[in-house]
Amino acid sequence: MTDRDTRHKNAMQKLKQHVDDKVAAATEERGLLMVFTGNGKGKTTAAWGTVTRALGYGYRVGVVQFIKGLWECGERERLVEDLNLDVAIMATGFTWDTQNRESDTAACLEVWREAERMLADPEVYLVVLDELTYMLKFGYLDIATVTAALENRPSDQTVIITGRNAHRDLLAMADTITEMQEVRHAFNNGLKARRGIDF
Amino acid sequence: MTDRDTRHKNAMQKLKQHVDDKVAAATEERGLLMVFTGNGKGKTTAAWGTVTRALGYGYRVGVVQFIKGLWECGERERLVEDLNLDVAIMATGFTWDTQNRESDTAACLEVWREAERMLADPEVYLVVLDELTYMLKFGYLDIATVTAALENRPSDQTVIITGRNAHRDLLAMADTITEMQEVRHAFNNGLKARRGIDF
Repeated sequence: MTDRDTRHKNAMQKLKQHVDDKVAAATEERGLLMVFTGNGKGKTTAAWGTVTRALGYGYRVGVVQFIKGLWECGERERLVEDLNLDVAIMATGFTWDTQNRESDTAACLEVWREAERMLADPEVYLVVLDELTYMLKFGYLDIATVTAALENRPSDQTVIITGRNAHRDLLAMADTITEMQEVRHAFNNGLKARRGIDF
Repeated sequence: MTDRDTRHKNAMQKLKQHVDDKVAAATEERGLLMVFTGNGKGKTTAAWGTVTRALGYGYRVGVVQFIKGLWECGERERLVEDLNLDVAIMATGFTWDTQNRESDTAACLEVWREAERMLADPEVYLVVLDELTYMLKFGYLDIATVTAALENRPSDQTVIITGRNAHRDLLAMADTITEMQEVRHAFNNGLKARRGIDF
């Protein structure tokens, strides 16, 4: 065995030990609250990746889309025939297209009722609240209403919340937080958003 | 209209103008090179979310899994029957389980040939090179080989590369880079990885 091989083997053994120790220490089992936030690409996409994953094991999944509702959405099209997937969409689409606080609030509260139904259903293994953070930021939804529904959900249910500028009460409750930071974005260099990739 | 409504309307108009301006400025159309890196959760998941999205429009997709090959993988199970999806898996699984540099290098080069085939095929709209960064870091693959294959790929093909510690040459080439930063991870607080959520 060369020196390089030996060094490699030692490094890999150390890494394996580190991972094994962490796996052994993780003993608590329950549903998680995950927040995907930050200004970079990948928040909603990672949520849909998790939806695909959960459906792959036959779990029931609920998705509530608070903003992108009226956009074309390839992942929704791909999965929508799955009987285990339940999707609720806010009727108004992008809120900066309507510019009417009253009708946007009503549309938000209507789709929030669907979210509450999913968050109360022990058969639903994963709930995605896509772009929820903006509803709180714009004042369409009350943070206390949201945290109450999250706290009272079935203990095995995992929830993913996506969007920039997540409310500090959501961050405080979260088990896992990833901040998707934009290092570079093609769109800002004049590259067009691509069908099947960006939407 | 109340003051609050007027302020809201003005803020939304400004936001809409900003987005409209950016959309108008984005005129170049070609496949993108995207890198999802950083130590947080969501890199591979966002890649699979994009796979689901592209399949939703009927595009052909190739996925090469360089490390997680032997793990259970719900998203692969969910999508694998899709005739537009081609998945190649590195045979050895987690490299720190084998701890043999020579056999890992051979396994890496074998699956890299599948990647090269996809990267040369104009029918493939999206190629995911999942966990490729570690192959470069461990010295199983040469960076020049990788950048040559990326540079010579069909101009309409988008490539997503995932993994921590992305090589600086990959970052220099990338159109979009998101760094998934771990703010908090349930696993580090003793919570078990969950089937259908974490794998």
